[in-house]
Amino acid sequence: MNAIISWLKDTNAQGLDTYGNAIAVAILVSAVLALLYVVLTAKKVLGFPEGNETMIGISRSIRTGANAFLKRQYKIVGLFFAGMFVLLEIFAILGYISPFVPFAFVTGGFFSGLSGFIGMKIATAANARTANACQSGLNRGLRVAFSAGSVMGLTVVGLGLLDITIWYILLKMVFGLPTEEITGAMINFGMGASSMALFARVGGGIFTKAADVGADLVGKVEAGIPEDDPRNPACIADNVGDNVGDVAGMGADLYESYVSSIISASALGVAAFNEVAAVDRTRALLVPLLLAAFGVLASILGTFFVKTKENASQKNLLGALRRGTNFSAILIAVAAYPIVRLSLGASFWGLYIAILLGLLAGVFIGLCTEYFTSDSYKPTRFLAKTATTGSATAIIDGLGLGMLSTVLPVVIVSVCLIGSFFLSGMSVTVGGEVIPFSNTRGLYGIALAAVGMLSTLGITLATDAYGPVADNAGGIAQMSGLPEEVRARTDALDSLGNTTAATGKGFAIGSAALTAMALIASYVDKIKSIDPDFVFQMDIMNPPVLVGLLLGACLPFVFAALTMKAVGRAAQSVVIEVRRQFEEIDGLLDGKGEPDYASCVDLCTKASLKEMVLPSLIAVVVPVVAGLLLGVNGVVGLLAGATITGFLLAIFMSNAGGAWDNAKKYVESGNYGGKGSRAHKAAVVGDTVGDPFKDTAGPAINILIKLLSMVSIVFASVVVAFSLL
Amino acid sequence: MNAIISWLKDTNAQGLDTYGNAIAVAILVSAVLALLYVVLTAKKVLGFPEGNETMIGISRSIRTGANAFLKRQYKIVGLFFAGMFVLLEIFAILGYISPFVPFAFVTGGFFSGLSGFIGMKIATAANARTANACQSGLNRGLRVAFSAGSVMGLTVVGLGLLDITIWYILLKMVFGLPTEEITGAMINFGMGASSMALFARVGGGIFTKAADVGADLVGKVEAGIPEDDPRNPACIADNVGDNVGDVAGMGADLYESYVSSIISASALGVAAFNEVAAVDRTRALLVPLLLAAFGVLASILGTFFVKTKENASQKNLLGALRRGTNFSAILIAVAAYPIVRLSLGASFWGLYIAILLGLLAGVFIGLCTEYFTSDSYKPTRFLAKTATTGSATAIIDGLGLGMLSTVLPVVIVSVCLIGSFFLSGMSVTVGGEVIPFSNTRGLYGIALAAVGMLSTLGITLATDAYGPVADNAGGIAQMSGLPEEVRARTDALDSLGNTTAATGKGFAIGSAALTAMALIASYVDKIKSIDPDFVFQMDIMNPPVLVGLLLGACLPFVFAALTMKAVGRAAQSVVIEVRRQFEEIDGLLDGKGEPDYASCVDLCTKASLKEMVLPSLIAVVVPVVAGLLLGVNGVVGLLAGATITGFLLAIFMSNAGGAWDNAKKYVESGNYGGKGSRAHKAAVVGDTVGDPFKDTAGPAINILIKLLSMVSIVFASVVVAFSLL
Repeated sequence: MNAIISWLKDTNAQGLDTYGNAIAVAILVSAVLALLYVVLTAKKVLGFPEGNETMIGISRSIRTGANAFLKRQYKIVGLFFAGMFVLLEIFAILGYISPFVPFAFVTGGFFSGLSGFIGMKIATAANARTANACQSGLNRGLRVAFSAGSVMGLTVVGLGLLDITIWYILLKMVFGLPTEEITGAMINFGMGASSMALFARVGGGIFTKAADVGADLVGKVEAGIPEDDPRNPACIADNVGDNVGDVAGMGADLYESYVSSIISASALGVAAFNEVAAVDRTRALLVPLLLAAFGVLASILGTFFVKTKENASQKNLLGALRRGTNFSAILIAVAAYPIVRLSLGASFWGLYIAILLGLLAGVFIGLCTEYFTSDSYKPTRFLAKTATTGSATAIIDGLGLGMLSTVLPVVIVSVCLIGSFFLSGMSVTVGGEVIPFSNTRGLYGIALAAVGMLSTLGITLATDAYGPVADNAGGIAQMSGLPEEVRARTDALDSLGNTTAATGKGFAIGSAALTAMALIASYVDKIKSIDPDFVFQMDIMNPPVLVGLLLGACLPFVFAALTMKAVGRAAQSVVIEVRRQFEEIDGLLDGKGEPDYASCVDLCTKASLKEMVLPSLIAVVVPVVAGLLLGVNGVVGLLAGATITGFLLAIFMSNAGGAWDNAKKYVESGNYGGKGSRAHKAAVVGDTVGDPFKDTAGPAINILIKLLSMVSIVFASVVVAFSLL
Repeated sequence: MNAIISWLKDTNAQGLDTYGNAIAVAILVSAVLALLYVVLTAKKVLGFPEGNETMIGISRSIRTGANAFLKRQYKIVGLFFAGMFVLLEIFAILGYISPFVPFAFVTGGFFSGLSGFIGMKIATAANARTANACQSGLNRGLRVAFSAGSVMGLTVVGLGLLDITIWYILLKMVFGLPTEEITGAMINFGMGASSMALFARVGGGIFTKAADVGADLVGKVEAGIPEDDPRNPACIADNVGDNVGDVAGMGADLYESYVSSIISASALGVAAFNEVAAVDRTRALLVPLLLAAFGVLASILGTFFVKTKENASQKNLLGALRRGTNFSAILIAVAAYPIVRLSLGASFWGLYIAILLGLLAGVFIGLCTEYFTSDSYKPTRFLAKTATTGSATAIIDGLGLGMLSTVLPVVIVSVCLIGSFFLSGMSVTVGGEVIPFSNTRGLYGIALAAVGMLSTLGITLATDAYGPVADNAGGIAQMSGLPEEVRARTDALDSLGNTTAATGKGFAIGSAALTAMALIASYVDKIKSIDPDFVFQMDIMNPPVLVGLLLGACLPFVFAALTMKAVGRAAQSVVIEVRRQFEEIDGLLDGKGEPDYASCVDLCTKASLKEMVLPSLIAVVVPVVAGLLLGVNGVVGLLAGATITGFLLAIFMSNAGGAWDNAKKYVESGNYGGKGSRAHKAAVVGDTVGDPFKDTAGPAINILIKLLSMVSIVFASVVVAFSLL
């Protein structure tokens, strides 16, 4: 690290452009390093044996189903991207947007999709290997699953950094664009990434939960057969769903979060340091990228700390993962100071505190999530108890739990917002010159807090993405009839995956809220750059703002409703198909007949792709229409409203879902009568309701709130030119 | 009417103060008229016979339980009011608030409680009488039940107008306060009314739903006995709940809505016409009161249109009620024009349009509610269908339906907000002088829209409040073993009550949103009057505002969570008690043993009173604490955030609840297998989850959002003096 600092000092002395270019190349190198790590780790994973014939066969079925889904999904998404490309090209030709926009949009979408695709490839390759490795021991299983997770984690951050840096180098060094135009163009691949992520999350989310809910309803509740039982015709679809939703969807989603947080911070940095003569704006642009690049290195180092003893307990396993993430977080917390100091100067220490606040907020939100969703604590245990009086009381209590769990994250984000804003924006003295308090610099601080929160994404995502691999491994162990102890090991890995997934969701939601705020600020800046004389009236009591707030606040509700109803509809068709097979295929329940897995996979694919279109279009169309009707002030209201209720609904839904899931597990582990009891039946209903909550609607809302801002930014000139108010 | 207009013209010519005084007396007269109507109608209701011994006995048990609950509730609420009185008195002595505040606060609370009390008295007197009247025919039953409902409706508006007018006359004529101080003091009895309403709604709402859920869970689901079966130990508690929650709670609630809308409009009217030299501010203060007074007369006239043929169908019944409300609404729509024109002058026709928009918005929101919750339409029918695949899909679809149902009301309220603001605020010419566009006048228009929406409350509340009476009548018919045809008649009345209750909720929510907006504007005015140099920074991008928005938006979630969890806890204790009685009392299920009804009533009373305190305290404490930490701008954010998510959550919860209720009824009427089928079991779970949604959390949120504003207004000086930011 010392070497890096002194190198930074050197380039620092050489003058600004050289510094910027050198930094850009260094960032590119760390992106390449991440991808190198990906290739090596993927090779390592593929080196493990897949197990016996049955396991290979099941794994192949899952892979085939997942590939078929992605292929068809990419076709539909491709149409959308082609249409948007043409539309953007028209606006570019008419002069409303920069000619780079259509291309940036498409690359953002491409890389986002690619992140999901690579993640899914490795996950579907690792599932049988994890199950097989669990035959020889828990640590070996953890190694395979976690390695697969880290391939995904480093792919996302590697591709994210690569995309941003290539565009930066292209625009800066090849086309020689001025700095503020660079960040303007970069926002557009954010929009591409968000659009792709939304399709992936919504489509994959509907698939996975339709299959899961459908399989559970007929299998567990009606036929009384266990989860992942090979007699259940929907069980392959269920496992395919884990991959297309929880892996491919999550990969695209977090690629988007990562990239959005960095580019919104860069854009605000340029705007903020416009006012500071002593510091080149380019440096403020590069700080988020540098932070991310260090995060990549810290994440790679952190992965080496994840290992455990053979007879590890649940606690040991969690400890192993925690060691890795904590190590990376501390590394970043330390490295962020020299990054801020050497890039912008010691006076701007407030920005460093903002980064720290972001990191801490991420950790605290994660802890809150754990408290509300883990069965080690009171809320989920009490939820399990309410299941003894039936499913209605379990649903009521779970909804209440989810709503109540919004309080602490709101307080944490509020403290982080206020703290980073005032500390980052405060009046400072640079070289004798007093620079007054700056709102934009304060907002830059907020954006940096989001980057800080996500800087360790490489490893936090690894601990998160390993969950679906372990889940699949469990399914394969069950379906191929491996010994009870193997299933116990995959269960241990899977259950841990639920906790890390909950923590990961906390990060995703927290960073989404901060990034969305930063993007709203970028929108305001964008308007200023289009029309420097524009008079903002963003006063809450101005009715267009108020109406914007109201409409925006309504959007996450609509979005959640559409996706949940879509899951409900798709799950119903699965239920009907599975019931049909149980009735029509002779001896299916006795294990003699052969279920038609492919028909369930096909059904889910068709249903989820059909249902994915409307919610995604709403996210793109509404901000433009609202802008044309209510004007710029209305749009700001809309974005703020959507961010605020989106944040609340996302936490509510993912925590309620997580708690129901774990309450069910708690009952299954022998409490309140255990499996098959009245409490268990009620807990299963809770879990089923929670499925679309936590894995479809909740995560999709995170993307929605950012996509709305980015669409608004891209079409800002159109709104300024044609709005009614 | 011509006579009235010419009389208005006369007083108009006589000079302003005389005009104001004359109008005040006229309003007082209409309040007294309403109360006279109440006395006569109550006498009429009491003139009907109560039926046989069993019916009298059951009715007496319900009455006893309800009275016992109210007595204990008033004791606790009394403590709260005493404490607040002392606190306010201290602030008054220290000079932070006017010396009238503590007294105004207490009278508001008293009248609000009284409205609920009278409503409950007549409802518990009318239940057996309605059941008995249904023995001789449907029309007779409707007459008794609707008369009881109209006693409640006219009590609320009569007492509301009386309270406002007495205070006006006292402050104006006796103490000679200047106009703006009058409205300032009036806001304080709004706060008293809101506090009382919140206690009544939350306490009563928890009672009624704990009893209902508890009774259903053990009775219907576990023991398989019908609703209101006398063998169920919780059935009296269930019927008591209808009275203390749906009647006493609703009465206090709507008294609060009515009064708040009028006084917030009056306050803004005074502020708006400060800027208009040609018109006395007092006239702007009196317009909302005049509108309300005409509404009272229109409501009384409307009640005479409610009658039906003996063999009336469901449609005829609804038609009968609709005739009454429509007649009153048209009367008001016509009368509002001369009121505005003669009071303020023809130039301000925009304010008349605002009133019309409010009336229309109320009607349209009601229609939306009907569409989403009535089983005559697709959403609820589809919800019933999802019940065929189990309770989980029914819950998922119902939640989705509720969320989706927020869109249209949001659009309606948005159009109403934008329309009334711009039309009311626009630049006008009065006597040759051009008065420029005024924000405050625009906001006055929004407040008038709320008054317009609620002006026909006398009759809309009558159609709403008759529901619980019919519900209770059904219970009594069932428990006393009246013939099947009687039960069929009470069911017809009850089912209609569900539709009118849904419409009524639409009104309550819509007016709450508009009134809350008006109250926020009053808060801003209040701050200006405390410190004319205060620099507002209510810009959404100002972090204290943003954080205020976030915290405010979180409050309705917390509130809903606390009340729902309270219902869950209380219901669980009922379940355990009923199970105990089924097990321990010999022959109870065979109809030989005697259930202990009183223990269930007592249990619900204790539990609900205990659970009522925390949510109510939060509503009072949070705005003050937030103000001290975040300052005035943060408070504005907090109030706006709470209003916006409160509006959305309230619609979501009450529509989801209504749809589940009616989906269950739809299944029970023979669809998807009818009573006892798999679909029916699932639909009952949905209905049970919906109970606290629609009758506890949803309505309480309406009060919450207004109470927050009023608390902020009352403690504004304290916040200005001591806030950190």
